[in-house]
Amino acid sequence: MFDLMNELAITNQTKIVLLVADGLGGLPREPGGPTELEAAATPNLDALVARNVCGLSIPVAPGITPGSGPGHLGLFGYDPRLYTIGRGVLEALGIDFDLGPDDIAARGNFCTVDPAGEITDRRAGRISSEIGGQLVEKLRAIRIDGAEIFVEPVRDYRFVLVIRGSGLGAEVDDTDPGRTGVPPRKPSAREPASQRTAAMIESFVSQAAAILKDDHPANMITLRGIARRPPTPSLEEVCGVRAAAIAVYPMYRGLARLVGMAILEPGKSWAEQTAALARHWDGFDFFFLHYKYTDAAGEDGDFARKVRCIEEFDAGIPAITALGPDVLIVTGDHSTPAKLKNHSWHPVPVLLAAGSCRVDEATGFGERQCLRGGLGQVEAKYLLPLALAHAGRLAKFGA
Amino acid sequence: MFDLMNELAITNQTKIVLLVADGLGGLPREPGGPTELEAAATPNLDALVARNVCGLSIPVAPGITPGSGPGHLGLFGYDPRLYTIGRGVLEALGIDFDLGPDDIAARGNFCTVDPAGEITDRRAGRISSEIGGQLVEKLRAIRIDGAEIFVEPVRDYRFVLVIRGSGLGAEVDDTDPGRTGVPPRKPSAREPASQRTAAMIESFVSQAAAILKDDHPANMITLRGIARRPPTPSLEEVCGVRAAAIAVYPMYRGLARLVGMAILEPGKSWAEQTAALARHWDGFDFFFLHYKYTDAAGEDGDFARKVRCIEEFDAGIPAITALGPDVLIVTGDHSTPAKLKNHSWHPVPVLLAAGSCRVDEATGFGERQCLRGGLGQVEAKYLLPLALAHAGRLAKFGA
Repeated sequence: MFDLMNELAITNQTKIVLLVADGLGGLPREPGGPTELEAAATPNLDALVARNVCGLSIPVAPGITPGSGPGHLGLFGYDPRLYTIGRGVLEALGIDFDLGPDDIAARGNFCTVDPAGEITDRRAGRISSEIGGQLVEKLRAIRIDGAEIFVEPVRDYRFVLVIRGSGLGAEVDDTDPGRTGVPPRKPSAREPASQRTAAMIESFVSQAAAILKDDHPANMITLRGIARRPPTPSLEEVCGVRAAAIAVYPMYRGLARLVGMAILEPGKSWAEQTAALARHWDGFDFFFLHYKYTDAAGEDGDFARKVRCIEEFDAGIPAITALGPDVLIVTGDHSTPAKLKNHSWHPVPVLLAAGSCRVDEATGFGERQCLRGGLGQVEAKYLLPLALAHAGRLAKFGA
Repeated sequence: MFDLMNELAITNQTKIVLLVADGLGGLPREPGGPTELEAAATPNLDALVARNVCGLSIPVAPGITPGSGPGHLGLFGYDPRLYTIGRGVLEALGIDFDLGPDDIAARGNFCTVDPAGEITDRRAGRISSEIGGQLVEKLRAIRIDGAEIFVEPVRDYRFVLVIRGSGLGAEVDDTDPGRTGVPPRKPSAREPASQRTAAMIESFVSQAAAILKDDHPANMITLRGIARRPPTPSLEEVCGVRAAAIAVYPMYRGLARLVGMAILEPGKSWAEQTAALARHWDGFDFFFLHYKYTDAAGEDGDFARKVRCIEEFDAGIPAITALGPDVLIVTGDHSTPAKLKNHSWHPVPVLLAAGSCRVDEATGFGERQCLRGGLGQVEAKYLLPLALAHAGRLAKFGA
């Protein structure tokens, strides 16, 4: 598809807006009842559906539950099975770290170990960002032969480790065992070219253990998601759009940066995000706005709060439509049904509003209505070419 | 998808049941009328649809009519375009022949030829299994240089030939011309590596002709579906489920064996099959039950009998749901509309029942209702990952 989009791309003055309500899709709380989206009062989204098309977006493939990385890459038009992103890379991108193509990044946690070296708390009592920052400062004293080391705070008990060297493989297993009652794992290479990397990480971890030994509860570290960034063409390279992201949470800014989006100052609230959109309207062709709280409520299993979040999200719509986007897409990166308290594989409601829509019979935004929608059930990666088409940004294929 | 399922597979205690009513999908007998499934009284299936999701399964690709092999492989999660199975392999697997990875198998028919050597009956007057068995015994006298030969009866006029050698190609055309009035074809290799195999088959056929010359009506043989088994990972290797098949007909047991299913004693009737399911409930994670008679009635063009078969199939549902499967899928391997007296390419009704279903607006099991179903129109190979997801057997993909 990228070759095709690249070949057919047309530059014009249109504006495309992609609104992502994280974890938007849901499930009924009880049999026969409404989903979160169906229960929410969403007059603005309903009005858009009634005049345009809706459908369901399949994030990766039927039955596959995506993390935030594959969920968003799909919405940006990238096949999430071809472009896989390690957690360490996401974290580094999310703190504005300028990750080079050869850098190896890992997500770090401060944790608590007992005198036997076994983990008793994987998050070190959720220490504050202030204390986390002080401990990161200490870890910056660590030196490793043959590579430059960066240690950067993320928030609370989380940090990023970046190893900058040359000829280093990135195929090293997590040291985080994923549970308490056992010691951190030794870093282990999955292939010969990564053995030197594993040795460097082992050296880093043992130096960190020595430095932190009196810093209870944060007296040890674990590392996971050790990875290099995939070679990802930018959206501008793929289809000529100058894209910008307005996202409050670092990870989503990191994902946007990976596909070459400019990162705009989002403010804190949804209203501030939509205000940022208005402020930067003339500077870009494609805007990605990320609303986090639908997913957080779903993960907490809080059906009612997810309903309220959806209503807050809906309330921001008029400020966006008032700008007159040529194409507006509203969807989620995956479903997070409160019933499951987790991401899920269920297809995600999507609406596409544009002047060239072939209107369907759906009259409101909800999972059952979207089953009748004109978009059908479509893989998320096809939403970008659909948006480009409605924006007049794709020429005819073939004579 | 297999790499992905393999990476994400989780083992737990859930039970998945796949019920296949062979050739389930149909067509109206007259314009505007009901299909076989719509005409049948299916209170148990209707109740499942009302509380769960339905849709339509595309066996291979739009417009492609599958045989039983690709139809079932798709339902087992295997892309039927990647895993192709020759008829000879199917027949050998279906009689419990322990087919080695290098064995070449062919489906054999006893047939009748006239003094000019032209076929007058492709099934030798449908001789009995008893006579067929006696003739197979005669053919076992045949010897071929450089390979071991196995001749095994199937039933009636059908047998299996297996050639066990080394370095033998399996690209040899059928000797069965598919019609009467012409002689059997000479075995012909489609590539150089199979020329030795073709010569062996030619030797086998000429020896068989000499042996059978006085056994009218079974005075000759034809061979077709000459093939080696594809290298097929087992379902347990793909996704960790221990799978078992409860199928009355040999071919379907053979297909199940090909993907590593245990073969359980099915009894004869549908009630005995469901009783076998109950008996073995604790021993496996995934059960495939095959009901043949819907297809047989469709192939006979007997609309009313197909309706009755569907009703018999429906009557077996309560015994299955009483076991409390975590995920129950009901579908067919393809459509066999009585109107066409043949397999067809039409999508096949499918229902999926599980605790995590996003209920759709369908209220009964039938082709038109399934068009409104939450599963949409989905390739058969995605039903396995969907079942695994609903069973909590697939972890999240990516961070």
